[in-house]
Amino acid sequence: MTANSSHQLWIYDTTLRDGTQREGLSVSIEDKLRIARRLDQLGIPFIEGGWPGANPKDVQFFWHLQEEPLQQAEIVAFCYTRRPQKTAGDDPMLQAILAAGTRWVTIVGKSWDLHVTEGLRTTLTENLAMIQDTIEYLRSQGRRVIYDAEHWFDGYKQNPDYALQTLKTAISAGAEWIALCDTNGGTLPHEMTQIVTDVVKAIPDNTQLGIHTHNDSDTAVANALAAVMAGVKMVQGTINGYGERCGNANLCSLIPNLQLKLGYTCIEDSRLSELTQTSRFVSEVVNLAPDEHAAFVGRSAFAHKGGLHVSAVERNPLTYEHIQPEQVGNCRRIVISEQSGMSNVLAKARTFGIELDKNNPATGEILQRLKALESEGYQFEAADASFELLMRQALGRRQSFFEIKGFQVHCDLVEGKETTNAVATIKVAVKNRDILEAADGNGPVAALDAALRKALRNFYPQIAEFELTDYKVRILNGHTGTAAKTRVLVESRNSHQRWTTVGVSTNILEASYQAVVEGLEYGLLLHSQAEAALSTSSGN
Amino acid sequence: MTANSSHQLWIYDTTLRDGTQREGLSVSIEDKLRIARRLDQLGIPFIEGGWPGANPKDVQFFWHLQEEPLQQAEIVAFCYTRRPQKTAGDDPMLQAILAAGTRWVTIVGKSWDLHVTEGLRTTLTENLAMIQDTIEYLRSQGRRVIYDAEHWFDGYKQNPDYALQTLKTAISAGAEWIALCDTNGGTLPHEMTQIVTDVVKAIPDNTQLGIHTHNDSDTAVANALAAVMAGVKMVQGTINGYGERCGNANLCSLIPNLQLKLGYTCIEDSRLSELTQTSRFVSEVVNLAPDEHAAFVGRSAFAHKGGLHVSAVERNPLTYEHIQPEQVGNCRRIVISEQSGMSNVLAKARTFGIELDKNNPATGEILQRLKALESEGYQFEAADASFELLMRQALGRRQSFFEIKGFQVHCDLVEGKETTNAVATIKVAVKNRDILEAADGNGPVAALDAALRKALRNFYPQIAEFELTDYKVRILNGHTGTAAKTRVLVESRNSHQRWTTVGVSTNILEASYQAVVEGLEYGLLLHSQAEAALSTSSGN
Repeated sequence: MTANSSHQLWIYDTTLRDGTQREGLSVSIEDKLRIARRLDQLGIPFIEGGWPGANPKDVQFFWHLQEEPLQQAEIVAFCYTRRPQKTAGDDPMLQAILAAGTRWVTIVGKSWDLHVTEGLRTTLTENLAMIQDTIEYLRSQGRRVIYDAEHWFDGYKQNPDYALQTLKTAISAGAEWIALCDTNGGTLPHEMTQIVTDVVKAIPDNTQLGIHTHNDSDTAVANALAAVMAGVKMVQGTINGYGERCGNANLCSLIPNLQLKLGYTCIEDSRLSELTQTSRFVSEVVNLAPDEHAAFVGRSAFAHKGGLHVSAVERNPLTYEHIQPEQVGNCRRIVISEQSGMSNVLAKARTFGIELDKNNPATGEILQRLKALESEGYQFEAADASFELLMRQALGRRQSFFEIKGFQVHCDLVEGKETTNAVATIKVAVKNRDILEAADGNGPVAALDAALRKALRNFYPQIAEFELTDYKVRILNGHTGTAAKTRVLVESRNSHQRWTTVGVSTNILEASYQAVVEGLEYGLLLHSQAEAALSTSSGN
Repeated sequence: MTANSSHQLWIYDTTLRDGTQREGLSVSIEDKLRIARRLDQLGIPFIEGGWPGANPKDVQFFWHLQEEPLQQAEIVAFCYTRRPQKTAGDDPMLQAILAAGTRWVTIVGKSWDLHVTEGLRTTLTENLAMIQDTIEYLRSQGRRVIYDAEHWFDGYKQNPDYALQTLKTAISAGAEWIALCDTNGGTLPHEMTQIVTDVVKAIPDNTQLGIHTHNDSDTAVANALAAVMAGVKMVQGTINGYGERCGNANLCSLIPNLQLKLGYTCIEDSRLSELTQTSRFVSEVVNLAPDEHAAFVGRSAFAHKGGLHVSAVERNPLTYEHIQPEQVGNCRRIVISEQSGMSNVLAKARTFGIELDKNNPATGEILQRLKALESEGYQFEAADASFELLMRQALGRRQSFFEIKGFQVHCDLVEGKETTNAVATIKVAVKNRDILEAADGNGPVAALDAALRKALRNFYPQIAEFELTDYKVRILNGHTGTAAKTRVLVESRNSHQRWTTVGVSTNILEASYQAVVEGLEYGLLLHSQAEAALSTSSGN
């Protein structure tokens, strides 16, 4: 793992350490292991796993990886330099990092004189000794060392001589990589270019440099690119740009920029197409909603909305897309919205496999219906399944699987008991029969869903394999003073597909019920289409 | 409005036109007017209001502004060049832009030969004539013209001679500003520097250049900065970076970078401190959740989490913050989380005005309780009010205003009726009396809230001024196969403060109820603190 080709870069992922500093993000050991294995599969060479000295959860994480190692990636343990006025061998944090049992360790040390005197409250000389002792000690224990120069850019601006001395100390103590960190994220790209160029000149020729940027100036990705173009060979960042405050440099943007636009090699080309999936996997595991507008991997990154534009993009995608979405595993998407022109509706119909042309009066009717519902608060941009049902309705091609006649839901919290209970009763007309069923559940929506499934399961046994996988609620604040409306998006899945439906009402329960009911209906539609396809193909 | 100082830049906001192309964003005329007036107040000199030829809503928007003009900003109408083979005077789109009645208009034209031949399906010569005729016609009608060179950077890379010809045509036809647009967002900062430098050399010396970037490469802000440093004087972007696909350059990042770090003047220094508020105002009006991790203006932009770090930042903020948060109207925040050390809890107590030191056994108890609740799915990072109540509980200083003894909620959808109805019954012990009340509402949470208020209002008339302002629901997907938990965040306010509370349960209704109940309790706490402060001060 040394820089032997001028076009090879080393990606260093710190999602599991710096990324977890993001406000609102917390992960279990199990989550961290799943993410590490996924990054390994993507071909990331260095994965920083955590700070074993600071966090007992991280100690166990490294032990798990000793038992079941990663395939290819180096898992890296992170730690500060030894404490002032102590010896490295006696520092419990350094014992913890050795116990992690990794080949590589990252040691972070102070570059900025102010942080030494005010933060650590020690002398500039002692800080150099701390860097040297720590690295030498870890080398003597057989570890390979990456040195993270914390607050490098601010430190260099304040006191360049001292800052450079810290790097030279780390190099002579045996660090194999020197990563320059813009810890506060305040540096702009032109300063990055200038300072990295200065460093390259000031340190020994064969030193391998890395870059670690934060997004406080909204330029973390550009800063890392500037550093690479000035000679850096290791790029540190996180999946989805997770990290403290405004986040770290986003590897999901950096890797395609470096590899597709600048001609560097970061991961195998064949792996690059797993990037979008990896981004979504990580957001799912850490339980944060994906950023739909993220560059390259966001759901909207290759979405086309304006009418004119959509016809043009279908003729020649290169004129409206900076890369081919498939290169990063993403896809082009035609969006339905208030601004939709006729050509969007037609393009969308094609993706549903519905034949529609602009002379069909139903096309205009669909557009009108869409606009009317959107003005009531519906939104179909994220609810394709509901839009397909609407389109089928207008075309007289919506299959009737069942009809809800009414429902009741009852919840109570009894004095002295800890939990509430919900019971739902539902009346459904299905295949010319009226079915009345009741069910309970953890909450009113779950109870309603259970009662409906109970009413339908004898008629449609396939609903047993549908599952409600996500449920999102948005309060639509009208400025009119009337009661706020609630929009609910429900994501459902069967064993091989996912679909999303929408409901809107002033009553959260009714909005949920609309979306749940359409979710079941759409699942039944998919099932009947699959059966029809099967019988056609076996008939030929 | 001409570039007379080398440090003056002209900000051109296109939130109301390009910004509204963002998937999931839709605005009413009223919303657009509110945003325009807010941007005017911030001191943005050019505000693009919309495309009156394409959208009837935009026509009315401009008419409203004719009746009640902005204070200082120029409102700009946007339009394409005339259609091929038509005259400018006969083009209905150009009639619509004249009817908008603005002094300034922005005309967008094609720079990329491929877009002319494949998109417009006309000749390269006709495209030049379209640019020339359109601008000359608008000039003859007394309009001042900004020319947006669409797909400029891709066009220049493919056919630099033709691309430059389009600019020269626009300049000689009378455009006062030439804005170079990276429409597909694929350009990287180093290319930006190179191409803008080429343009500056190739066109007449006194030409005023602008830049319009998109974030598809995650470098929109850095690209605009590179263009400014290469000589551009107008910067186009949107509030919060809203825009199609991955968004436009974010003015909330650009303005502070340009003004605080690079020494340019964009808006008055005294207005800069309204930036955070403006960002949140716009996200509120367009009804999108604010990006909490946004640079400069995000709620997390100056949030500090790690324990060590928090003590250091309190000693010397400059060492951990790239700018002073107050400069952009933001504030420092100490975050409570699973990783919280003792010093975070102590710092948080100080912000609540609670005296606590590390030797107090309650401090350890608070930390333990925090960790236990977080492992159940609670999250206090966004729910300070609930955290303060927890802290007061541990200290034996939680005031008891009321106690819920039990509740029942009933909802039904009756056959043939369109809407559901919810009725809640609640039993509350308050000031040694048991109160039983019932109320109905648009939904179960609203009914529960109404019943509780009804039960309390005779005892605490001040609750009439509390309002529930936001309600967020998150499904916590456990990987354990057990029932999913729901986390509810409720934001409440009185006439001068806002606070957030949290509830967690497998039942959405119970999670909501916990958060609503704590929201009311915290409001009562604030009221009693205000009264106590008043009686103390009047006593002195």
